[in-house]
Amino acid sequence: MQKFYEYLDAHREQNLAELQRYLRQPSIAAQNIGMTEMAQLAQERLQARGFQTRLIPTKGYPVVYAELGDGPRTLLIYDHYDVQPPEPLELWETPAFEPTVREGNLYARGVADNKGDQMCRMQAIEAWLATLGPLPLKIKWVIEGEEEIGSPNLEAFVHENKDLLKADGCLWEFGTRNELDQFSLTLGLKGIAYFELRLRQMESDVHSGAAPVLQNPVWRLVWALNTLKSPDNRITLDGYWDHVRPPTPEELAWADSLPFDAEQAKAFLGVKEFVNNMDAKAANRAMFYDPTLTICGIDAGYIGEGSKTVLPKEARCKLDFRLVPNLTPEIVRDLLRKHLDRHGFSDIEIIGFSSEHWARTQPDALMVQAARRAGQAVYGYDPLLYPTSGGSGPMYPLSTMLNIPAVCAGIGYQGVRAHAPNEHIRLNDYWLGQKFIGELIKALAEI
Amino acid sequence: MQKFYEYLDAHREQNLAELQRYLRQPSIAAQNIGMTEMAQLAQERLQARGFQTRLIPTKGYPVVYAELGDGPRTLLIYDHYDVQPPEPLELWETPAFEPTVREGNLYARGVADNKGDQMCRMQAIEAWLATLGPLPLKIKWVIEGEEEIGSPNLEAFVHENKDLLKADGCLWEFGTRNELDQFSLTLGLKGIAYFELRLRQMESDVHSGAAPVLQNPVWRLVWALNTLKSPDNRITLDGYWDHVRPPTPEELAWADSLPFDAEQAKAFLGVKEFVNNMDAKAANRAMFYDPTLTICGIDAGYIGEGSKTVLPKEARCKLDFRLVPNLTPEIVRDLLRKHLDRHGFSDIEIIGFSSEHWARTQPDALMVQAARRAGQAVYGYDPLLYPTSGGSGPMYPLSTMLNIPAVCAGIGYQGVRAHAPNEHIRLNDYWLGQKFIGELIKALAEI
Repeated sequence: MQKFYEYLDAHREQNLAELQRYLRQPSIAAQNIGMTEMAQLAQERLQARGFQTRLIPTKGYPVVYAELGDGPRTLLIYDHYDVQPPEPLELWETPAFEPTVREGNLYARGVADNKGDQMCRMQAIEAWLATLGPLPLKIKWVIEGEEEIGSPNLEAFVHENKDLLKADGCLWEFGTRNELDQFSLTLGLKGIAYFELRLRQMESDVHSGAAPVLQNPVWRLVWALNTLKSPDNRITLDGYWDHVRPPTPEELAWADSLPFDAEQAKAFLGVKEFVNNMDAKAANRAMFYDPTLTICGIDAGYIGEGSKTVLPKEARCKLDFRLVPNLTPEIVRDLLRKHLDRHGFSDIEIIGFSSEHWARTQPDALMVQAARRAGQAVYGYDPLLYPTSGGSGPMYPLSTMLNIPAVCAGIGYQGVRAHAPNEHIRLNDYWLGQKFIGELIKALAEI
Repeated sequence: MQKFYEYLDAHREQNLAELQRYLRQPSIAAQNIGMTEMAQLAQERLQARGFQTRLIPTKGYPVVYAELGDGPRTLLIYDHYDVQPPEPLELWETPAFEPTVREGNLYARGVADNKGDQMCRMQAIEAWLATLGPLPLKIKWVIEGEEEIGSPNLEAFVHENKDLLKADGCLWEFGTRNELDQFSLTLGLKGIAYFELRLRQMESDVHSGAAPVLQNPVWRLVWALNTLKSPDNRITLDGYWDHVRPPTPEELAWADSLPFDAEQAKAFLGVKEFVNNMDAKAANRAMFYDPTLTICGIDAGYIGEGSKTVLPKEARCKLDFRLVPNLTPEIVRDLLRKHLDRHGFSDIEIIGFSSEHWARTQPDALMVQAARRAGQAVYGYDPLLYPTSGGSGPMYPLSTMLNIPAVCAGIGYQGVRAHAPNEHIRLNDYWLGQKFIGELIKALAEI
């Protein structure tokens, strides 16, 4: 692998420039910005490495599908060419789509989630082909365009392409070091159910002098939300906990066995305390095994400068449920509708957006063994194994439904600010990540 | 008065054009837009009628002060040259600052509140001077620039100009027909205390996958708000009701004696039911005597298209308390701070904006008698007397503090949409309102 490593080290300048070009293209699925251009760019960059590519249409944005190599084993790679909206724009130190290097980090929307991993993987394969010859296994690559809006069409895509996607292991779109900066493999994702709640009371805003006789939709939304979660941060959606399987003693022991530096974790999150003053052990367990209900946004009436005495005509908010076994998006939606009706909020409309099932890979899977061996070779120690990420994604269709063990392994660290302003990666993680990809190809072919 | 009436009828076209010019000038105090230009325009229009004018500086926008006429009685007129922000702009059928006549109505921001009344009064005085000679009383005119942001400097202005402002009666900035379209006089205003609540948890938005261990400021704001008002719409701010003097039997009888068409009122407000399914009697009483707490706006996180899975770093909302005897802005602010602290929300910051005391005029005052006589002359019936408006304004310093009885009498009707998109007046009300001003000058001089 020496030549492979040397090739990568020698090409850093041009590889960084290529990555920056890749990041300069906005591709915001939620706002339908730059999606066609980005799908073309991804295809073009894959073709430049010899991949056979095609766009596979879905009911939404198409999937970029690519294949290269041959061998007894097949590696499926999952990435996505869409990114989160960059708002709030004013909080970016440099513009979201002008990739900028500062102090060894590269800042841009999508660099951590997940264009950095995509390009890292492409450049590693280029280095392999240039120094070690043909790939020793077949790579099948799925780059979808709707991950950040909840992959609404990926399950149908998988159903229609079951045979095409057969593989021995799946490399997931991201992977992140732990808060102690140790290279880690993550073996699962939480599910998600994302809704907008809307409540319209009147056709027009009204002077707040009429408040004695008018229902206020913002108050009603506040009261409805208050029934969903109590001030101790516990979800109180009727019937919810009946569907939550508590972690087993083995799962708790797994969590407790992992290193966790609470102070480092707080520093990365930018807080002084965890919610409810959780200690390190509780916080570590919660990250793996707790379902959550987050208000991602709320909006009503006038919120500009100074005062405007108005009674708003409508109110809305965005809610994100993160799901653990055995919650499903369908169960949550059903419970939410019934709960709102039961508590007198039938007038609140529920609009569904993202919806993903949770997924977990067994730690003894062949793909996990290969990833551990590759991590050992590049980082010098056996990577830590995490039972699940706090994030979500379409691992259920690509892994659980197809029976392909999936592993999250990538170039992230705890400070990347994915989904937030000033998203970035550390370039050092990127250079090491390229080498990990070569070692993973080798390990999965040989193991 | 025949010549006075005829002069007004003959000048409608040019008077409408002048009003439209007056409305075309934006003057949004909350956003510091067009304020200097508007103060100049108001002065210029007053000077055109022979008023001696000057700008009296305050700590905020200056007061336009004007005087004209002489006689044993003095009429103080109170108006304001600022208007509410026009947002949400997309809901205006024609732009807020492009005054447009449609079906006998004139649409523009500020036409009902209160540039229409200002111009109506100026044009009536012009007609008097042109047809009846010098004014039979002295008019003192205060046009301030901060009414829509709570008149923060008017009380100090009154303190510094007590002698200048001496008068026998005060004509308030607005007046509105009731929902049966009967011309009415209103003898008081509610107080107001307007606050912004802010809660910042982190320096930056965070991926909502970290929700198991993070406090969410939006949830905390929801829980805090929920402690302030219960789903039955009752204010639950600790200690609040100790300061509310219930209406006396006489006050309740006064309310009950007034005509009130609940269905008409609902139609004007754009609702099918009053809150809590109040009947007509309860709703009518509530409008006069109930204190209110309105969420005027709320904002946090992402609320654009589609989904963004983010845990917001901060949350904020705007609250408007309308005050009845004996609540004061100072009491409410103090109660609110203590309440939030007591309920565990010391981290919620309170920023104060508007603050006004309630005020009421006795129905037997000379000024009320004059306004009734003028109403009788123009409209053909004794105007209805309302104990108070649901709105607020600086009547306390100008009336209560100076012991000048104030009466709200003007050109509004229930459908004007003050503070909302498509604010308008009916031109017929405007033409009658001019005549009312002439009759009021006559009545107050003679009575």
